[in-house]
Amino acid sequence: MLRADIEAFHAKRETLDPQKYLILTYYLETLVEPREGSAHLCQEMSTAQWSRVDVEEDFRPEFGAKVVDIELIDANAQPSSPFLADTMGKAYDHVYAFNVSIYYPYNNFGTKIPNLLTAVCGEGVFHAPDICAVRLLDIDFPESFLQDFQGPQFGVSGLRKLLAVPDRPILFGVIKPNVGLPPKPFAQLGYQAWLGGLDIAKDDEQLGDVAWSSVEERSRLLGALCRKAETETGEKKIYLANITDEVDQLIASHDIAVKNGAKAVMINGMTTGFSAVRMLRKHASVPLVSHFDFMAPYIQLPWFGVRDKVFSKLQRMAGYDVLIYPGLDSRLKTTKEEAITNARACLDDMGDLKRMLPVPAGSQWAGSLGSLYELLGSADFGIVPGRAVFGHPMGPKGGAASLRQGWEAVRAGKTLEAYAREHEELRHAIKMHT
Amino acid sequence: MLRADIEAFHAKRETLDPQKYLILTYYLETLVEPREGSAHLCQEMSTAQWSRVDVEEDFRPEFGAKVVDIELIDANAQPSSPFLADTMGKAYDHVYAFNVSIYYPYNNFGTKIPNLLTAVCGEGVFHAPDICAVRLLDIDFPESFLQDFQGPQFGVSGLRKLLAVPDRPILFGVIKPNVGLPPKPFAQLGYQAWLGGLDIAKDDEQLGDVAWSSVEERSRLLGALCRKAETETGEKKIYLANITDEVDQLIASHDIAVKNGAKAVMINGMTTGFSAVRMLRKHASVPLVSHFDFMAPYIQLPWFGVRDKVFSKLQRMAGYDVLIYPGLDSRLKTTKEEAITNARACLDDMGDLKRMLPVPAGSQWAGSLGSLYELLGSADFGIVPGRAVFGHPMGPKGGAASLRQGWEAVRAGKTLEAYAREHEELRHAIKMHT
Repeated sequence: MLRADIEAFHAKRETLDPQKYLILTYYLETLVEPREGSAHLCQEMSTAQWSRVDVEEDFRPEFGAKVVDIELIDANAQPSSPFLADTMGKAYDHVYAFNVSIYYPYNNFGTKIPNLLTAVCGEGVFHAPDICAVRLLDIDFPESFLQDFQGPQFGVSGLRKLLAVPDRPILFGVIKPNVGLPPKPFAQLGYQAWLGGLDIAKDDEQLGDVAWSSVEERSRLLGALCRKAETETGEKKIYLANITDEVDQLIASHDIAVKNGAKAVMINGMTTGFSAVRMLRKHASVPLVSHFDFMAPYIQLPWFGVRDKVFSKLQRMAGYDVLIYPGLDSRLKTTKEEAITNARACLDDMGDLKRMLPVPAGSQWAGSLGSLYELLGSADFGIVPGRAVFGHPMGPKGGAASLRQGWEAVRAGKTLEAYAREHEELRHAIKMHT
Repeated sequence: MLRADIEAFHAKRETLDPQKYLILTYYLETLVEPREGSAHLCQEMSTAQWSRVDVEEDFRPEFGAKVVDIELIDANAQPSSPFLADTMGKAYDHVYAFNVSIYYPYNNFGTKIPNLLTAVCGEGVFHAPDICAVRLLDIDFPESFLQDFQGPQFGVSGLRKLLAVPDRPILFGVIKPNVGLPPKPFAQLGYQAWLGGLDIAKDDEQLGDVAWSSVEERSRLLGALCRKAETETGEKKIYLANITDEVDQLIASHDIAVKNGAKAVMINGMTTGFSAVRMLRKHASVPLVSHFDFMAPYIQLPWFGVRDKVFSKLQRMAGYDVLIYPGLDSRLKTTKEEAITNARACLDDMGDLKRMLPVPAGSQWAGSLGSLYELLGSADFGIVPGRAVFGHPMGPKGGAASLRQGWEAVRAGKTLEAYAREHEELRHAIKMHT
């Protein structure tokens, strides 16, 4: 790039109206020095060819993305992916690794999720010349942008009110066997778990609206047993129906499930698109719960793709009340730092948007409650075990009871082992997990 | 895993009814030997906990995914991502690298795109224990599955008929400046390019429905000039409107654009979800064109994510008539093999689905036609240059003319240089690209 063209994509932060820009943070590895590499990114992701032939004009001042800050990490790095570096067809002996802050004028595309994704994760970003590693680390949205998004309808406090659970972690359970079990015995498992103390019995992310277990039948059976469990326990309960489906079925499926007694619905948002969730939010009468299917290739590598917290923010903006995301379990390939960062993206102030309940998933059990409470520094979270409830040797009722006991131990300031001496369900749970 | 449990996720191909299964091919790297690692994958991606406590039952025979073949690549490999291998929290000195064929009973989720993605790219796949690299290489769909999908409405031959271009590559051009130019001068650029010989003038993938250039106004102006260009050239022309938007706006935007004279619409399908495209296909009256924004993190690494051809197949099933995908340009980070493989996914027999026009994108110009024709072995493709048309020193008319001349040279069996001696536009094009 010519020197003047490089400069056209750099600006001083204080010269830019913060209400007109998104602030994007990327990690980059480039074959050229950071000032040029980041200018190239800005050019590709915004104005590309910025004037007509033989016309004196320049669309960069108003429509160009602009670098405001570069934080050099390593001026003499080796590429995280030699494969990607080699596809660029240039000799190199090192790359530059750095973080860059970019102001992006969102007037280029408006407050639309698909068009935002095109701009910040599209061809311009991941196919820019001389850039051999890209990770979108964060987006800061100005109030002017956020105000077009409804965000959570219920949020953490609304969900707590529905459940009449003011101050402890919310106990979700994924009914197992997840796939294959007909609706009748499936519903019985949810019922047993509610009796044992579970708050929310949910469908697995793999269980949708299928011939052998329709949303209609499942929600009818579980809706009825949910009311029964509420009467018998004197507690509020929720059946969470997975209505993930073709996008033109989501609203109809929501209506069927809710009419039949589902008091929340789950949509695997990355598979339907976040925009479909935003559409459903305008119509929904119950809390919306996310699942992270289809997200891993973006989020798992620290030098590539998109950091999970970006998706967490987008999902909160789209209208989810509960965020299920990869949590602390070697299987989940997630660090403690990411688990905390995602919880913060759910709970921190974000315009006028309500707070979204963080649920860091992953083979949880009674013993997960204390460690998550400590890690997150708050009881505003949920856990979502499967086997710990539905594979418990005393059945789902015993499994759910073990979760409640796990939290009672935390409140009593006792070790699990000490508390388990007088609680058989917890004793079995400890045995299952050691 | 216990030996019996490993065996439950392996089967002989000939014992399985091919009409009931998708055939999935994955590349895997595992810490445990391939037979166990692939069984683990099958368990996580299908039946997980396959029986209730104290109930004699096993859902694996009917609902379990089943390994039918393992092709060992390296029994003593180092992980492609040491980072991911380390997250598993186990000591290892090597990993197993192999391809595996898995039969997946699609009755588990039905013929729905979001639920398919959950099953084959969801938590079960990318968060399975002991697996530190996953790439979904291919899906073979049985006829019974494909028959629920409409596929392309026009296909290659329908598009050729609309354009009255029976046998040469289709010439698309991305109007530039892509962002910032108001509709009136923007439309003039399209008009000039049509006069020069362009078939399809299109919006950039970044240009949506925005305050400073609405789909309504753009399509009205370009629709009128398209008709004018047709009259003046005696050729058929298409304005391709990018209607990428929130999913609940797609149908309305299609209707506005088409009423105003757009004769095709583009949707950046990964940003809206493929399911939204399938929804639009049921309603659309013009060809649907894809763009690959937001797809890179899945497709760019050879050992991770999803191979592009899987998305190509899904997009054909969803109903795209034209597939724009990363082509041959160092910027695009794509190999020749991938470019060919994607073209085949567009054109090869696939149930009763029509053929989809492959358009391998990437800084193309007149000289790209001959090399792509040779590479793909057919004229059933398109090119989609931007600068080569709209940055041409003789303007868009000259730029478009240079493309036609590039193809005339191929047909005449002449080198570009020889043909350029009598064609000024091509001469300039060569100078721009050397």
